[in-house]
Amino acid sequence: MSKVHNFSAGPCILPDSVLKQAGAAALNFDGLDLSLLEISHRSRNFVAVMEKARRLVKELLGVPDGYSVLFLQGGASTQFITLPHNFLKEGGKAAYVSTGTWAKNAIKEGGLVGEIDVVASSEDKNFTYIPKGFQIPPDVDYLHFTSNNTIYGTEFHEFPETDVPIICDMSSDIFSRPIDVSKFTMIYAGAQKNMGPAGATLVIVREDALGHTGRNIPSMLDYQAHIKKESMFNTPPVFSVYVSMLTLSWLKEFGGVSEIEKANKAKAELLYNEIDNNPMFRGVVAEEDRSIMNATFVLNDSANEEEFNQMLADGRINGLKGHRSVGGYRASMYNALPLESVQFLVDIMQAFAGKHGN
Amino acid sequence: MSKVHNFSAGPCILPDSVLKQAGAAALNFDGLDLSLLEISHRSRNFVAVMEKARRLVKELLGVPDGYSVLFLQGGASTQFITLPHNFLKEGGKAAYVSTGTWAKNAIKEGGLVGEIDVVASSEDKNFTYIPKGFQIPPDVDYLHFTSNNTIYGTEFHEFPETDVPIICDMSSDIFSRPIDVSKFTMIYAGAQKNMGPAGATLVIVREDALGHTGRNIPSMLDYQAHIKKESMFNTPPVFSVYVSMLTLSWLKEFGGVSEIEKANKAKAELLYNEIDNNPMFRGVVAEEDRSIMNATFVLNDSANEEEFNQMLADGRINGLKGHRSVGGYRASMYNALPLESVQFLVDIMQAFAGKHGN
Repeated sequence: MSKVHNFSAGPCILPDSVLKQAGAAALNFDGLDLSLLEISHRSRNFVAVMEKARRLVKELLGVPDGYSVLFLQGGASTQFITLPHNFLKEGGKAAYVSTGTWAKNAIKEGGLVGEIDVVASSEDKNFTYIPKGFQIPPDVDYLHFTSNNTIYGTEFHEFPETDVPIICDMSSDIFSRPIDVSKFTMIYAGAQKNMGPAGATLVIVREDALGHTGRNIPSMLDYQAHIKKESMFNTPPVFSVYVSMLTLSWLKEFGGVSEIEKANKAKAELLYNEIDNNPMFRGVVAEEDRSIMNATFVLNDSANEEEFNQMLADGRINGLKGHRSVGGYRASMYNALPLESVQFLVDIMQAFAGKHGN
Repeated sequence: MSKVHNFSAGPCILPDSVLKQAGAAALNFDGLDLSLLEISHRSRNFVAVMEKARRLVKELLGVPDGYSVLFLQGGASTQFITLPHNFLKEGGKAAYVSTGTWAKNAIKEGGLVGEIDVVASSEDKNFTYIPKGFQIPPDVDYLHFTSNNTIYGTEFHEFPETDVPIICDMSSDIFSRPIDVSKFTMIYAGAQKNMGPAGATLVIVREDALGHTGRNIPSMLDYQAHIKKESMFNTPPVFSVYVSMLTLSWLKEFGGVSEIEKANKAKAELLYNEIDNNPMFRGVVAEEDRSIMNATFVLNDSANEEEFNQMLADGRINGLKGHRSVGGYRASMYNALPLESVQFLVDIMQAFAGKHGN
C-alpha cells in the first residue's frame, strides 16, 4: 500500500520516529515495565520528561533568562481567558489585532475581563491579508495578535514594532522559524501543530510582567501559580508532554528552528509556485502575507471539484480540504511534513492540469 | 523478570489490553495508516471515538435523559473554578464539605466566585473520617463534596440526603461502584484513576440546571458552550479520550460497575483484613469510612520502615508510598488492579511480620 501524505491542519503529522517512541512508551516506559500512562506524574521518570521538555523549548527558541516555560491544558482557547486575567489591569485596556476566527475568539474572551481596543482588522476582506502600519495606543496594557492564521493561510512575516508588551498566539507556527522571544511578554501555543499531539498548551511568559493586574486570579488561570509548581500545579497531560518532548528532541536533531525554516520555505515555495503557475488553481490571500505553514487555494473552475478530489483520494492525500468556514483547499505543511509529500501533491496538480489540456 | 505490582494513586494502573490498543493506535489508528496523534479531531474516525466514550459513560452509570456527558481538559482543579461559574448565582451561596486537600482547593476556588458555607469538616482529625449528620441550609445554590479522598483513604459510603442540588468530585472513585446519577446535578472526575490516562476530565451535568446564575461565563468555563459543540468546542485531548473510551469498553466487558464493585470490595477486604490482623501495621482512618479505592496504613514501629520498604522494592511493588502530606503507606486498588497484586502485597506484609516473630 502506498504511503499516506498527511496535510492535516492539526492535530497534524508528527515525525515517524516520534510516533514509534510514543507507541513503545504506552507499553513500557523507560524500562520500568510500566506504561507511561499508568505511572505517577511525580515519579522521577516523568519529572525528568517535563524538565527536558521545558529545557528544549528554551534551547530551541533561545528563551532568555527571566522567562518561564509551562505546559498547561485547555488549548489556546483557555489562554484567551487566562491571559487577560494575568495582564489586563483593573480599569485597563488591551489592543488586539483581528486576523481571523481565533483572533476574534481571543477578543471576545478578553472582553469579558476588560476593555478591548481592536486596533486593526482584515475582516473587510475575509481575513485574506495581514493588517500593517496600524497605530497602537501607548497606554494599553498589551498588544495581542495571532502570528499565523491557520484557517485563512496568512502569517505575520514581520512582527509589530511597539513599546507596549506584546502577547502572541503562535499555535500554528511556533518552532517553524527563529523568533526573538525577548520582544514578547508572552507567547502561547496549542501543542497540536509543530510540537506534539493535542492536549498540551505551551506558555512562555516573562516573569516580571506578572502580578500587576490587581486581580484575584483563580489558581488554574494564574501563571504565577503554575510557575511556582514548575508546571505541576495539578496532574499535567503526561502523554502529550512526553510526545512534545520527543518532537522537540527530533527538531533539535534536525538542526533546530533555523534549519527547519529552510526546509519549510522550500516546501512552501514549491507549492505556491505551482499554485501561481498552474492554470487550474489560484491562491486566495495576499502574496506577501502567505503562510509558510498553511497554503490555501481554490479551483478556478469549481465544476472540476469532484474530479480533483478523486485524484487526491486516489493519491492518499489526507487533510487537504479547506476549513469548513472558507471552503477550497488548504495544504498544511508543518515541520514534520517531508518535501516529498509536497512534490507528490504538486505532481497531482500538474497531472490534473494535463488532463485538461494544460 | 517478575511482574510489577502497580498500586500508584494516579495516574494509575490501566488494563493490559487497553495499553496494547493504545500503543498500537499511536502507530496506526483504525487502519488509516496514520497515527491517532496526527489526525484531525473532526475526522469521522475520531468523532466516532468521542461519541462512543460519551455513550459508554451513559450506559455504565445509567445516566438519565436530560444530562450531558463532556470530556474536557484541565483536571478537577479546573472544575473547581468552572462549576461555581455555572451554578453559584450572583449574590448566592454554596455549601461545601471539607474532607481533605482537594475539597479545600474546591472551597478556595469557589470562594473567588461567591459565598461559600463550609457546612462540615473533618480537618479537626486530619481528615481521617467522613463528617455525618451535618445541616445543609435549604437556601444554598448547591452542596459540593468529594466522594473519595485519595490522600487520606476515606470515602462517602452513603451520600448526603438533601433537597439542594448536589455536585460531587468523584475523581478517584467514579466507575468503581454503581451510583444514582439522578440524585446529582453535576458529577466530575479527572480521568487518571478508573477511566484513563491524565489529560481528560469527565463532566456529567444536568442540562436544565444550567444558565441560571446571571453570570457572563468565559466560553471555556461554560458547560452550555461545551454541550452545544458536543464536547468539541476546541480541540479535545484526543489520545486521553481514546484511551478512556478503551478503558470504559473494558469495564463494560468486565460486567460493568456492579461487577467491578464486587471485585473492588474483595480486594479491599483482603487488604484491610491484613492491616487489622497483622501486628506490624495499623490503619489510620475511621473503619466505617475506609475507602475501597485507597487503603492507608502505617507501621506500628517506624524503626522498621527501611526494612519493609526494601521488601516492597524487592517485590517490585510500585506506588505504595503515602502522599507526601501524610506519610505512611497507601495502597491504591483501582479497577484495573488484579486481586493477585493485593494478595502479593499481603504475602509480603505477612512475611515481614514473620521475620519479627509474628
